[in-house]
Amino acid sequence: MEEKKRLLVVSAHAADYVWRAGGTIAHYIQKGAPVRVIVLSLGVRGESNHLWKTPGVTPQEVADIRRRETFAAAKALGIQNLQCWELEDYPLRATPELESRLVEELRRFRPDILLSHDRFDILNPDHNQVSELVFRCSVISNSAGVQVGDTAATRQMGIFGFEPHQTELSRYRPGCFIDITDSFPQKKAAMACFQAQSHLIQYYTDRAAMRGNHARRLSGNGAIAYAESFSAFFPYAGDGFVV
Amino acid sequence: MEEKKRLLVVSAHAADYVWRAGGTIAHYIQKGAPVRVIVLSLGVRGESNHLWKTPGVTPQEVADIRRRETFAAAKALGIQNLQCWELEDYPLRATPELESRLVEELRRFRPDILLSHDRFDILNPDHNQVSELVFRCSVISNSAGVQVGDTAATRQMGIFGFEPHQTELSRYRPGCFIDITDSFPQKKAAMACFQAQSHLIQYYTDRAAMRGNHARRLSGNGAIAYAESFSAFFPYAGDGFVV
Amino acid sequence: MEEKKRLLVVSAHAADYVWRAGGTIAHYIQKGAPVRVIVLSLGVRGESNHLWKTPGVTPQEVADIRRRETFAAAKALGIQNLQCWELEDYPLRATPELESRLVEELRRFRPDILLSHDRFDILNPDHNQVSELVFRCSVISNSAGVQVGDTAATRQMGIFGFEPHQTELSRYRPGCFIDITDSFPQKKAAMACFQAQSHLIQYYTDRAAMRGNHARRLSGNGAIAYAESFSAFFPYAGDGFVV
Amino acid sequence: MEEKKRLLVVSAHAADYVWRAGGTIAHYIQKGAPVRVIVLSLGVRGESNHLWKTPGVTPQEVADIRRRETFAAAKALGIQNLQCWELEDYPLRATPELESRLVEELRRFRPDILLSHDRFDILNPDHNQVSELVFRCSVISNSAGVQVGDTAATRQMGIFGFEPHQTELSRYRPGCFIDITDSFPQKKAAMACFQAQSHLIQYYTDRAAMRGNHARRLSGNGAIAYAESFSAFFPYAGDGFVV
Amino acid sequence: MEEKKRLLVVSAHAADYVWRAGGTIAHYIQKGAPVRVIVLSLGVRGESNHLWKTPGVTPQEVADIRRRETFAAAKALGIQNLQCWELEDYPLRATPELESRLVEELRRFRPDILLSHDRFDILNPDHNQVSELVFRCSVISNSAGVQVGDTAATRQMGIFGFEPHQTELSRYRPGCFIDITDSFPQKKAAMACFQAQSHLIQYYTDRAAMRGNHARRLSGNGAIAYAESFSAFFPYAGDGFVV
Amino acid sequence: MEEKKRLLVVSAHAADYVWRAGGTIAHYIQKGAPVRVIVLSLGVRGESNHLWKTPGVTPQEVADIRRRETFAAAKALGIQNLQCWELEDYPLRATPELESRLVEELRRFRPDILLSHDRFDILNPDHNQVSELVFRCSVISNSAGVQVGDTAATRQMGIFGFEPHQTELSRYRPGCFIDITDSFPQKKAAMACFQAQSHLIQYYTDRAAMRGNHARRLSGNGAIAYAESFSAFFPYAGDGFVV
Repeated sequence: MEEKKRLLVVSAHAADYVWRAGGTIAHYIQKGAPVRVIVLSLGVRGESNHLWKTPGVTPQEVADIRRRETFAAAKALGIQNLQCWELEDYPLRATPELESRLVEELRRFRPDILLSHDRFDILNPDHNQVSELVFRCSVISNSAGVQVGDTAATRQMGIFGFEPHQTELSRYRPGCFIDITDSFPQKKAAMACFQAQSHLIQYYTDRAAMRGNHARRLSGNGAIAYAESFSAFFPYAGDGFVV
Repeated sequence: MEEKKRLLVVSAHAADYVWRAGGTIAHYIQKGAPVRVIVLSLGVRGESNHLWKTPGVTPQEVADIRRRETFAAAKALGIQNLQCWELEDYPLRATPELESRLVEELRRFRPDILLSHDRFDILNPDHNQVSELVFRCSVISNSAGVQVGDTAATRQMGIFGFEPHQTELSRYRPGCFIDITDSFPQKKAAMACFQAQSHLIQYYTDRAAMRGNHARRLSGNGAIAYAESFSAFFPYAGDGFVV
Repeated sequence: MEEKKRLLVVSAHAADYVWRAGGTIAHYIQKGAPVRVIVLSLGVRGESNHLWKTPGVTPQEVADIRRRETFAAAKALGIQNLQCWELEDYPLRATPELESRLVEELRRFRPDILLSHDRFDILNPDHNQVSELVFRCSVISNSAGVQVGDTAATRQMGIFGFEPHQTELSRYRPGCFIDITDSFPQKKAAMACFQAQSHLIQYYTDRAAMRGNHARRLSGNGAIAYAESFSAFFPYAGDGFVV
Repeated sequence: MEEKKRLLVVSAHAADYVWRAGGTIAHYIQKGAPVRVIVLSLGVRGESNHLWKTPGVTPQEVADIRRRETFAAAKALGIQNLQCWELEDYPLRATPELESRLVEELRRFRPDILLSHDRFDILNPDHNQVSELVFRCSVISNSAGVQVGDTAATRQMGIFGFEPHQTELSRYRPGCFIDITDSFPQKKAAMACFQAQSHLIQYYTDRAAMRGNHARRLSGNGAIAYAESFSAFFPYAGDGFVV
Repeated sequence: MEEKKRLLVVSAHAADYVWRAGGTIAHYIQKGAPVRVIVLSLGVRGESNHLWKTPGVTPQEVADIRRRETFAAAKALGIQNLQCWELEDYPLRATPELESRLVEELRRFRPDILLSHDRFDILNPDHNQVSELVFRCSVISNSAGVQVGDTAATRQMGIFGFEPHQTELSRYRPGCFIDITDSFPQKKAAMACFQAQSHLIQYYTDRAAMRGNHARRLSGNGAIAYAESFSAFFPYAGDGFVV
Repeated sequence: MEEKKRLLVVSAHAADYVWRAGGTIAHYIQKGAPVRVIVLSLGVRGESNHLWKTPGVTPQEVADIRRRETFAAAKALGIQNLQCWELEDYPLRATPELESRLVEELRRFRPDILLSHDRFDILNPDHNQVSELVFRCSVISNSAGVQVGDTAATRQMGIFGFEPHQTELSRYRPGCFIDITDSFPQKKAAMACFQAQSHLIQYYTDRAAMRGNHARRLSGNGAIAYAESFSAFFPYAGDGFVV
């Protein structure tokens, strides 16, 4: 990995980037890569079911908890640049305003790598909206004729998709495995910050071990204990095969 | 590219490896990689249509021409290690004997990268047979319980598939693009060796330019003039995203 | 339709060509096209379940009935050139000998159009074997280096696949609809010849009406009452769009 | 080709119809077919990157150049009926107003053949929007209960999709090849009109030769030098197989 | 079938639920299951072509006929709870208001089974809109943080998709077959209520027989004469295999 | 689950049935269902890598260990009827003799449910061979004209496929989830019997928890702690939806 690659992560809800990419994010930060994470929505309506069990809890209180949790998780991963855009979720709507805001963000941060939701999640329409939005904004951002203040057009980014929760039903296909053995303790610490979705901590711990098994099998690198997988929106182009 | 990666190419017929991977092979050789090419069949029956236009030509004469051509092309690419197994083609049959021979070859050469035909070519059943054969042999070779003389089991190789002639109908999907700008003159020289399929030289020259265009577009690397694309049988696993 | 197109039909069992293509065959014959039908197997083991209900019936007796039925059906359709190769079915094995025989047949009859089973039938492995066999033989037949007596290589044929019985589960996709309104009475008469599969007559009558409905809807041609659909192995190439 | 077929082409941006269908359009015009081309957007923002390199250039100046270019190209192809609707691009939004306007256009021009973008272009969200829009409008136009002034409902049109730029990644599958050997000089002249995308002229020249090779291979018609391919949204229905 | 399962059917137009699910609905009602049917649109513009043949007919008159027909059909099926939301069709727009209304309906009726259009109908964009809408609303309804009056979040429903008219082109795949032998007379009576689409009565009668054939073949249950098939959006989870 | 359903499991190698279906098998046995397991090969060559690390170990010794292990595992699951056919593996060849033997087995055991490998395992050609073999034999066994001693033809069985090791790359799609919460202790005990593949015990424990999570999510049944998933070769047909 070249340490200079700039990584932008766009997460539909407050915890998605942790479950699905927390180890990779921490790994890039350890290597010194500039990393920015945008949380589009706190997931107050759609991803806080446990919090709503408290009698009389208000949307504002749920939002406060979710906001605290995601900043705590970001800290555990070493993220210094987390933005919460606090859009409504369920449904999260990809308005023209949101589109413009994200294009400007792309123009200013200028990522090499764009991590977000994969094209299809069979159980989560918000994820699908965000996937399409992020891709569309990347194309707009790349185009010289789209004028956003004093920014220059970006170059084609590598776009990679998070694993959805039920992968096979979502037609997810791993395009790469990132070794997160070194950053896995940070991912565990970050996952522990989410009170509302505690049942997912073991799930994504097991998942990281499973992906580690797959990565060892395909690469022959026995040192990989934990991994995260991502879909690749495009093939790579370079000087040789990656094996 | 790490220069030490060992590359084994399995070509169904005498010219397949040139049209589909000649630039990549020459590029790896330039970098000092150990490269071996196995031509399973000279393509006397199925890929020598122009030669058969000579009245009275015999199979032996066609074979002689094809053998000379493939060795000349190999020389143009810098290949020192070309084997012609001279099996019959159309149909090329994947017998247990062929399977054993190829497993032994894998055990002895011990490639990191295995290049051969992709899983489906809508116009060429021989290519499909070879694709399946090569994959099957790689699995057998990797298994410790398969005893072949004094050889040890191999590790999982990266397996990559050639572009078929009509890609979309063959459901081909590029998994990577290899920049062959530096080795393209050698590919042109190698293609020029095939008298029987001269119509394909312009075709694969244009194809290399087209893939160069695609690789530039996806990578933002404007220096790529020519490329070859390959399917990737498996995802990669490593320390970071390839962009 | 140009009346001169030569049509070769390869049917796995004694009745397949009737259920799946009887109207089209009769239509081509009416137009004066040269038509040949090869029945690879009488379907004694796999497609004669009703006949086996007779206590003490022998394989020879079943074969005799099936042979009579298929010749009667051929007569109803106007087929003068029906061959029964009488191979064993369930499983029907695509041996090298069968392959050679079919290649020679292709070389001698020289069809423009090759009708046989589609690539995948979820309920019938014999159909899948035959589909692959027919395609493979067409490729071999097209190759100048394959010498079969004094025959010349054939040109690429149009290859079209029969509808399997349960289409959606077999991933069947119609590539064209042939209007059989004029020849439907002959198809009905031919279907009536099969004592062992009488339950299929209403099924394929309804199917022809359903395909007629589809063809009317897609073409805007309200005169189509009955149709048969086929998969197209390849796109067409010509002087304009077919609408 | 019946010369009376009416052809409507809907192009997302100012040059799409030239790169992807220019030869076919010129061919139909040569044959005397009524042809209309609608350019939805000049592509000022998204498809004029080279023009934006001029320091200080304004959107209006870019629009003027693109408008001149597309009319020049249309002239080279013999198109007398080109409409520029001058919508904004990147993103091109399929509003209800645009939908109504296009439905009315379909009702008045009454095409037999509708050419536009294929269902999925992996690199161009505008193309995807237009593909969906065109299909949706064709359905609405066909319905008798949709009242548009004094127009009558249309009949089902044949709908065909342009090749996207990177075909395999866009899951594009050729449904037909149109022989453009006779009109290829006009296509070259038309392509030469686009200053902003000069790098694409060689690309689409090579592509036409490649598709010519494919069309020759599949049809056995050795006279095809150049072709364009299109996806077919629906199967054809007719009197016989197209081979 | 447990008789207590609650069934909600969402039909894009006035007759869809009859053609595609009428037998199943009547069967559930016979068993005592609570059933509700929502007809989103009367299909005045898009599904009443025959009615528009009457010179001078007005949209209001067409609506009146369609409303009478759908209530008559509902009565024939035993449906006591039919709602006509009378939205405009062609296009049917999935507005936020519609979304909220349907979410509230889900919260109040609390179905175990949700029947609506399958994900893709190649000929009907309204059906696609409704499919996506229904799925999205089910997810929103399931989420505890979405507050709708005093309702509680629903549990995951089983979601099943109607057969589209041309199944294979719509990539439809049966996920289950429901035996409607006992309720088929009611379905016939219900279909007979639709004056505007009388050509479809035979079509869906044949279809029910065809699906009966498939269901017999796959289940070995010879008593099934008629069936309806549906896609299954999700796998089932339970105590054993369903065979 | 009706307790009388007869279950036949065909396992390519000595441990496959345990990793992939052990909980389901034990669950069926607990319910009193007749269960038979056929292990085609001990996996001496291909699935005993750890055993081969012992210097000087012989194939016979490996076979002895594997045989002991699989019988021990069968005992832990309560299987009284385990057959080891001891074919060679890597490659496991589907010979006509094997086909006949398996057809006879089907005719004699007469299963309602047939569990074996899914259609495609991207890493294991033996599994693919067995999947195809089992399906083919089921079709042959169902056919009245195939005479095997005094046996009668079988009825269509429900066929379900094991999860492959790397599911997404193998295009695996869960068709059903079987709740194995009650039999999971037995599965753990059975897995513990395999010395050669000890690394898989944690892997398949985590997998069972992951599938339990999926099954809870889709069914709303919070009591499911562990599950196994299987592909369904065919849809079900019955009296109502399974939810």
